[in-house]
Amino acid sequence: MLVTVAEITVRYAETDKMGIVHHANYAIWFEAGRVGFLKDMGYYYSDIEAMDIALPLTELVCRYKKPARFDDVLLVKTFISKMTNIRLIFGYEIYNKKDNSLLATGETHHVWTNSRLQPINISKQNGALFKILQKCI
Amino acid sequence: MLVTVAEITVRYAETDKMGIVHHANYAIWFEAGRVGFLKDMGYYYSDIEAMDIALPLTELVCRYKKPARFDDVLLVKTFISKMTNIRLIFGYEIYNKKDNSLLATGETHHVWTNSRLQPINISKQNGALFKILQKCI
Amino acid sequence: MLVTVAEITVRYAETDKMGIVHHANYAIWFEAGRVGFLKDMGYYYSDIEAMDIALPLTELVCRYKKPARFDDVLLVKTFISKMTNIRLIFGYEIYNKKDNSLLATGETHHVWTNSRLQPINISKQNGALFKILQKCI
Amino acid sequence: MLVTVAEITVRYAETDKMGIVHHANYAIWFEAGRVGFLKDMGYYYSDIEAMDIALPLTELVCRYKKPARFDDVLLVKTFISKMTNIRLIFGYEIYNKKDNSLLATGETHHVWTNSRLQPINISKQNGALFKILQKCI
Repeated sequence: MLVTVAEITVRYAETDKMGIVHHANYAIWFEAGRVGFLKDMGYYYSDIEAMDIALPLTELVCRYKKPARFDDVLLVKTFISKMTNIRLIFGYEIYNKKDNSLLATGETHHVWTNSRLQPINISKQNGALFKILQKCI
Repeated sequence: MLVTVAEITVRYAETDKMGIVHHANYAIWFEAGRVGFLKDMGYYYSDIEAMDIALPLTELVCRYKKPARFDDVLLVKTFISKMTNIRLIFGYEIYNKKDNSLLATGETHHVWTNSRLQPINISKQNGALFKILQKCI
Repeated sequence: MLVTVAEITVRYAETDKMGIVHHANYAIWFEAGRVGFLKDMGYYYSDIEAMDIALPLTELVCRYKKPARFDDVLLVKTFISKMTNIRLIFGYEIYNKKDNSLLATGETHHVWTNSRLQPINISKQNGALFKILQKCI
Repeated sequence: MLVTVAEITVRYAETDKMGIVHHANYAIWFEAGRVGFLKDMGYYYSDIEAMDIALPLTELVCRYKKPARFDDVLLVKTFISKMTNIRLIFGYEIYNKKDNSLLATGETHHVWTNSRLQPINISKQNGALFKILQKCI
């Protein structure tokens, strides 16, 4: 299984009055991890979109283990946990770089669609991309 | 089971370049639903925090059925699906007000803590709040 | 001068670790005020976009007088302070509904463009909209 | 005048349905630039806060020259444009790294306060920090 690592520094705006990071931001970090994963595979997500291919979410799961705090440097590990020519599940683990403690885990479920959000068969639409992602599992 | 309804109008800033609402915003709408639920029970969340009680998330699940779009009026239905004196699970359903179509469902899992994020027993800490919430299930 | 009022309740996610609202959210509230202003004039902003007309910002100014806090109910007063057939400046005042204290003032400067962000002359492109907005000043 | 440079990659969540970055995000990038500036001067902003010192905004100005787009790599140049022992103005320029084109300029005005947002005299409160920042102008 291929795992990529994206580094993210927590922004002040990402905190809330509890003094820790607001939980909605993890979904945005997962996305940054996912975009980085595809880039590491040779695919800019904007290029994928330019081919009239999109990857909207059908489900998001995030489990919060320990809080992230302002200015923490985070490591977002991203991998593909399941894949068909219709669907794709990314998995994520977020670590605090300083002490390597696990802060959160999660998954995002996606369907392959065109830009009008109609389902497509990715192996037919873009066999090269499909093959590359298949090798990552 | 008691269900509250909060009305939310989709903001332009909540959309992304796919032309629909970015998925991270649903977590923020769930939160607005949750705050409204507690308010309808007679508890301002800021008053709860002032009693040194917090409800941090341990897990977030969101299932996306249909996209929400700019300026859509949404109905966020919120209810308690499980509860002990340590933990609490809120459930959510988001509907498009116009055609009553279901856009998303989800849950947020919480632990009762003090403001330093140390677990507390809510029935001991605030028996009145515990009883009111128990009646909602 | 025509002034519209939009009511907004501060979300938890809009606060930061200083315990008050993060300053970037005022731009989003200004936008909600602006969208409401146009709606009160009979124009849904999504309808304006459907006519291939956009109103991108060229400048944002916000002056912060007093902090807004979680769950505060805000009144966003919106008006047009200047207008030509090329440009438009909206003005804003944000009040705390509870004590009517002024929290912030601001302006957003816009150019009328098509959806490819090319400048247009709004009085030629949509004379009816231009006339209605002109009467608001 | 000392100028620091922070590198930021545009996130998908930062775009809106116009297909470009939503204007509110520039305030968050300015903040990242400001935090980086202080870090380059030897001061973590979280350490400053731990000394009971805060730097809330009194005014934000942003001028948008050209749109930023998803996945663009941005350079946020940050500098101090004015400073007294009561007030501080940071200036910013945001460039697209690829072609070095100027996307936006701006300023944030701040007052030095304690954590309860009461004004303080920074040269009395923390002479070392005051002197270091003064040398940057």
